[in-house]
Amino acid sequence: MKTAFIGLGIMGGRMAANLLGAGYDLVVYNRTEDKATALLERGARWASSPAAAAAGVDVLITMLSTPEVVENLALGKEGFLGALKREAVWVDATTVNPSFSRRMAAAAQARGVRFLDAPVAGTKGPAEQATLTFLVGGDAEVITRCQPLFDVMGNRTVHVGGHGMGTSLKMVFNLLLGEAMQAFCEGMALGKALGIPRDTLLDTLLGSAVVAPFVSGKREMIRRDAYEAHFPLQWMHKDLHLATLTAYERGVALPAANAVKETYALAARHGLADKDFAAIYQFLAEGKAE
Amino acid sequence: MKTAFIGLGIMGGRMAANLLGAGYDLVVYNRTEDKATALLERGARWASSPAAAAAGVDVLITMLSTPEVVENLALGKEGFLGALKREAVWVDATTVNPSFSRRMAAAAQARGVRFLDAPVAGTKGPAEQATLTFLVGGDAEVITRCQPLFDVMGNRTVHVGGHGMGTSLKMVFNLLLGEAMQAFCEGMALGKALGIPRDTLLDTLLGSAVVAPFVSGKREMIRRDAYEAHFPLQWMHKDLHLATLTAYERGVALPAANAVKETYALAARHGLADKDFAAIYQFLAEGKAE
Amino acid sequence: MKTAFIGLGIMGGRMAANLLGAGYDLVVYNRTEDKATALLERGARWASSPAAAAAGVDVLITMLSTPEVVENLALGKEGFLGALKREAVWVDATTVNPSFSRRMAAAAQARGVRFLDAPVAGTKGPAEQATLTFLVGGDAEVITRCQPLFDVMGNRTVHVGGHGMGTSLKMVFNLLLGEAMQAFCEGMALGKALGIPRDTLLDTLLGSAVVAPFVSGKREMIRRDAYEAHFPLQWMHKDLHLATLTAYERGVALPAANAVKETYALAARHGLADKDFAAIYQFLAEGKAE
Amino acid sequence: MKTAFIGLGIMGGRMAANLLGAGYDLVVYNRTEDKATALLERGARWASSPAAAAAGVDVLITMLSTPEVVENLALGKEGFLGALKREAVWVDATTVNPSFSRRMAAAAQARGVRFLDAPVAGTKGPAEQATLTFLVGGDAEVITRCQPLFDVMGNRTVHVGGHGMGTSLKMVFNLLLGEAMQAFCEGMALGKALGIPRDTLLDTLLGSAVVAPFVSGKREMIRRDAYEAHFPLQWMHKDLHLATLTAYERGVALPAANAVKETYALAARHGLADKDFAAIYQFLAEGKAE
Repeated sequence: MKTAFIGLGIMGGRMAANLLGAGYDLVVYNRTEDKATALLERGARWASSPAAAAAGVDVLITMLSTPEVVENLALGKEGFLGALKREAVWVDATTVNPSFSRRMAAAAQARGVRFLDAPVAGTKGPAEQATLTFLVGGDAEVITRCQPLFDVMGNRTVHVGGHGMGTSLKMVFNLLLGEAMQAFCEGMALGKALGIPRDTLLDTLLGSAVVAPFVSGKREMIRRDAYEAHFPLQWMHKDLHLATLTAYERGVALPAANAVKETYALAARHGLADKDFAAIYQFLAEGKAE
Repeated sequence: MKTAFIGLGIMGGRMAANLLGAGYDLVVYNRTEDKATALLERGARWASSPAAAAAGVDVLITMLSTPEVVENLALGKEGFLGALKREAVWVDATTVNPSFSRRMAAAAQARGVRFLDAPVAGTKGPAEQATLTFLVGGDAEVITRCQPLFDVMGNRTVHVGGHGMGTSLKMVFNLLLGEAMQAFCEGMALGKALGIPRDTLLDTLLGSAVVAPFVSGKREMIRRDAYEAHFPLQWMHKDLHLATLTAYERGVALPAANAVKETYALAARHGLADKDFAAIYQFLAEGKAE
Repeated sequence: MKTAFIGLGIMGGRMAANLLGAGYDLVVYNRTEDKATALLERGARWASSPAAAAAGVDVLITMLSTPEVVENLALGKEGFLGALKREAVWVDATTVNPSFSRRMAAAAQARGVRFLDAPVAGTKGPAEQATLTFLVGGDAEVITRCQPLFDVMGNRTVHVGGHGMGTSLKMVFNLLLGEAMQAFCEGMALGKALGIPRDTLLDTLLGSAVVAPFVSGKREMIRRDAYEAHFPLQWMHKDLHLATLTAYERGVALPAANAVKETYALAARHGLADKDFAAIYQFLAEGKAE
Repeated sequence: MKTAFIGLGIMGGRMAANLLGAGYDLVVYNRTEDKATALLERGARWASSPAAAAAGVDVLITMLSTPEVVENLALGKEGFLGALKREAVWVDATTVNPSFSRRMAAAAQARGVRFLDAPVAGTKGPAEQATLTFLVGGDAEVITRCQPLFDVMGNRTVHVGGHGMGTSLKMVFNLLLGEAMQAFCEGMALGKALGIPRDTLLDTLLGSAVVAPFVSGKREMIRRDAYEAHFPLQWMHKDLHLATLTAYERGVALPAANAVKETYALAARHGLADKDFAAIYQFLAEGKAE
C-alpha cells in the first residue's frame, strides 16, 4: 500500500515515523522541508508539492493545523485532490469542524476519491508511542482498507458514523480537553492564592476523582512554570473555536466552553500563543502577589 | 470519647451511622427530627437543641448546608458553641468558605473551644462506604485527637495547614467538581446535537483521559435522564458561589467557574434546583429538537 | 436608475417600500412571494428568480438573513451575480461578517460587477421612517453612484473604508446592541428579584446615563411581557455569532459578548428564538418566584 | 443641622465640599488626614476618630469604599454608631449590598439611631457639580429630614422603598455601568482589530443609540490611552462582586455580569487596578499586533 503523508508537525512527524518503522513505502510533504529531514534519512521520499505527493498513492493522510490549510493543500494550486487516482483514499486526521469534513467528503467524491475524517484522541506522547485513538467517519469498507495504517499509528479505532462523524466526536473530545485544562488551572490558581503549597495541590488533585487523567501529564510543566509546547495554546484556542462554531450551527449553548475560549484568546494576546496550553495556569496565576 | 453529630442529611446521616457502627457514644441533632429516626433506633440519643447536643461531649461534628446555617446553630439562640466544655473540639465538616472558617475558629477560641475545619472530598457513596477524604485545617495536636473519628468515617486525612486551610482546599475541589460536571455535560450536549448516539458518547468519553473519573458515577443518571439527587444542583451552585466569593477576596479570576455558576443558577431557576447536579445535562440538551 | 431588491422581510420590505415611494422603478424577489404583495400592488414588478431580478438593472440590493442565504442567491442555481450586467452595482445590506463581504467583493469583481457592503444601523422603526444609517465599505465612486438610494432609505451614510469595512463596523454595532440588551435585562431581572417595582426600574433606568438609548424602544415589550419580534432573538444570536467569529479571526477576546451569545443560545433552545430579542428579559427573570 | 462627613475620597471630598459651600456646619473624618486639608481650610472641623465625628451631630454621612470598611468605622473600635445621639440619622452613601444595608439598619435601630441607605448614581463630575441622584431606602419621614442635604449634593432623590432598597437599585445601576463599559471596550477592541480608525469608531459609536451616554465622558481617556482614575477599576470590580453576590442571594443568573466581573479581575491582576475602569479597553486591545 503506497502511502503519502502531508503535515509533519508535532503530531504528523511522529505518526509518519511509525508508518516508516512498520515498513510502509512513504512519500511525504510539508510546507517547510526541514521538518522532513529525519524521515528522509530513514527512507521516506520527498514530494515537491501536494500534487506530487498524491501521484500514484493508495492512501493519502493529512495531519494539518486548520480547515483553511487543509482546503488550500487539497484544492488550491498544485492541490493533491485532483492528483489522486480514482478510488484512492484521503484520510484527513486534522482536527476540523464536521461541516468542513462533509464539504471535503463531497469534493473528494466529485473526483472519484474516497474520504475518511479520522482525527485522533491523544497528543504528542501517544503519537510517538502509537497509542492514539482514531475517531473515524465514513464508509465501513473504506475504514477496513485503512485499518492496517490506523493500527500502526494508534491502538484503537472508533467508527462513529458517516462523513463528519469522526470530527464530530473529536469536537467533543477537544471541548473536554480545553475545559478540563482550564478547570484545573483555575483550581490551582485559587489554591495558590489561598496559600496552599503547589506540591500539596498537585499531590492531592492529580489522580483524584475530580481531575481529568491527562492533566497528570502536565505536572512538571506546572511545577516548574515552564511550558514548552506539546499542544500549543493557539491550537487549543482554534479547537475551541471550531467546537463552539459547530455548537452554533446546531443550536447548542456551551457557556463554559465559550468562557474558556475567551480566556485562551486573552492568554494568546498576552504572549502565550506558542506555549503549551497548560500555560493558561501562568496567565491566571501570575500578576498580583497575594 | 463522647461525640455529638449535628446535621443528618445525605452526607451527615451516613457519617453518623458509621460512627454508631464503630461503637461510639453518639448524641444527634437535626432541624427535622425524622431524619434521625434510623440512628435513634440503632442507639443514638436525640438532643432537643444544638446546646443540648453539646453538653458534656468531647467532640462535636457539624455537617450542614451553608455558612449561615452553621453560624445560626453555633452562635444563635440555644447555639452549641456556648454549651461546649473547655477544650472540647468542634469539627466543622460543612463546605464553607475559608474566611468563614477563620471567623468560627476565632469564635471557638474565645470560648476556650478547639476548632478544626474538616470538609470532605467525596459524596453519597464514599460517605456510606467510609471512604471520604478529610481536608483538615487546624492544629496538629487537635487533629491527632480526632483522628480515630476521621478513620471511621473516611480513609484519608490531609492536614493542609492552619485554620481555614481545610476549607481552602475544599473550595478548590468543589470548583473542580462543578467545572468537570459542566464540561462533560457540554460535551454530551454537543455530541447529541451532532447525532452521536448517547451510548457511543458514554462509552467513549467515560473512563477516557479527558473526563474526571467521578463522572462515571453519573452514567446511569444521564443514560436514563433521571436525576435523583446524590449531590443536589443547588448545593453545587452554593459551592461555586463560595469558591468564586473566595477568589474575589484573593483577587483571583475564575472565568470558567463563574460561567458554570451562572449556568447552575439558570438551571435552578428553571426547576432543577433539587435534582442531582448532573441534571445540568438536561438543562443544556433539552429544548430544541435537532 | 433601474433597481432590484431581494429580501422583503421586516427590514427589506420597508426599505423597498421607501424606494417605491420615491418613484424608483423596482423589481423585487423573495423566497416566499406573499411578502411582496403590498409592494406589487404599489407598482413593483415580481421576478421569478434571483437571476430574473438582476437582468438589466443598474443596482441590485440584497437584505437577507445569513451569509449562507446571500451566497446561495448570488452564486447558486439561478443566482443573480452571473445575471448582472457589467458595471452594475450589487449593494449587500445584509448583516454578514467582513471576511464574507470580501469574498463576495472578489466574486463580483471576477464578473465585472461592482460591490458595496452596506449594512444598516437601525431596526424596524428607522427602516420604516427612512432614518437608517448605512455603514458602507467599497470605492468612493461607487458609493457616490448609489447615494441617492441610500438617501431615500436612510438619513446618514458613513463611508468606513474599502470592501468589508462596512460590515466590520456593523459587527461592532451589533455586538454593542446585543450586549446592551442583555445588560439591561440582567439589571431588570436583578431589580425585580430585589423587589423594586417594574415601573420604578423602567422610569429610573431608561433614559439614564447607564443604559443605551435604543432600549427605551423596548419599554412596552418589557412592561407587558409581550415580545412580538421587531428584531428576532435568533437574528441577534446570529449576529453575535458572526461578531465573535470575526473576533476569533482577528485574535480579539470578547468575554462578555460570548457570554451574551450563549445566553441567547439557551433562550432560543427554550422557545424564544422567534420572539424579539428583548425576550431575553423573560428568560432571565422567569422561573423561580422570589 | 450639625453634620458629620466620613470618607473624603474622590466622591466624598466633593460632596463634603458642596455641603460646606452651602454653609453647613461640618465635622469631617478620614483614615488619612491629608485628604481633609482643603476642607479644613474652608472651615470644616477635624475629628480625631469616627466616634469623635459623631458626637452631637444630627446627621452623619458615610461615603466609603467597601462594606468591611463601613462596618469597621461604624461598629469597630471608636466606631461612630455608639457615639451618635438618639434620633440622629446615619446616611450611608457607600455602594454596598442590600443585605449589608439591612444589617446596618438593624444595628442602628438597636441604638436608637435612624438609618438611610442612600448611594448615588453619578461619578466624579456629578459629585463636583452637585448633580448626583440619591437612591434612598428607609422611612419617608427621615428622608424628608435629610432632603436639604441631598439637594445640596445632588439634583434628584428617588425614594425606592424601605431599608436596603436604595442599595438594591444602586446594585442595578452599577451592574449596568460595568456591563456598558465592557461592551463599549469590546466593540472598540474589535473595531480596532478590523482596522477601523479609532476616531471613526469614537465618532460613530459615542452618542449613538447602542452606547450608554456616560461612555462619552470616557472619550478622551480612550483616545489618548491614558486612564487617570475617575472611577478606579478595582471599585468597579468590587461593585460587580457585590451585585453578583446579591444576585446569588436572590437566585438570579447574571451570565454577562459575571463574565465582565472576571475580566475586571484579570485586568486588576495585570496591573490596572488603580486606573479608571475605562482601562478595560487597554486590557482587551493591547498585546497582539493586528
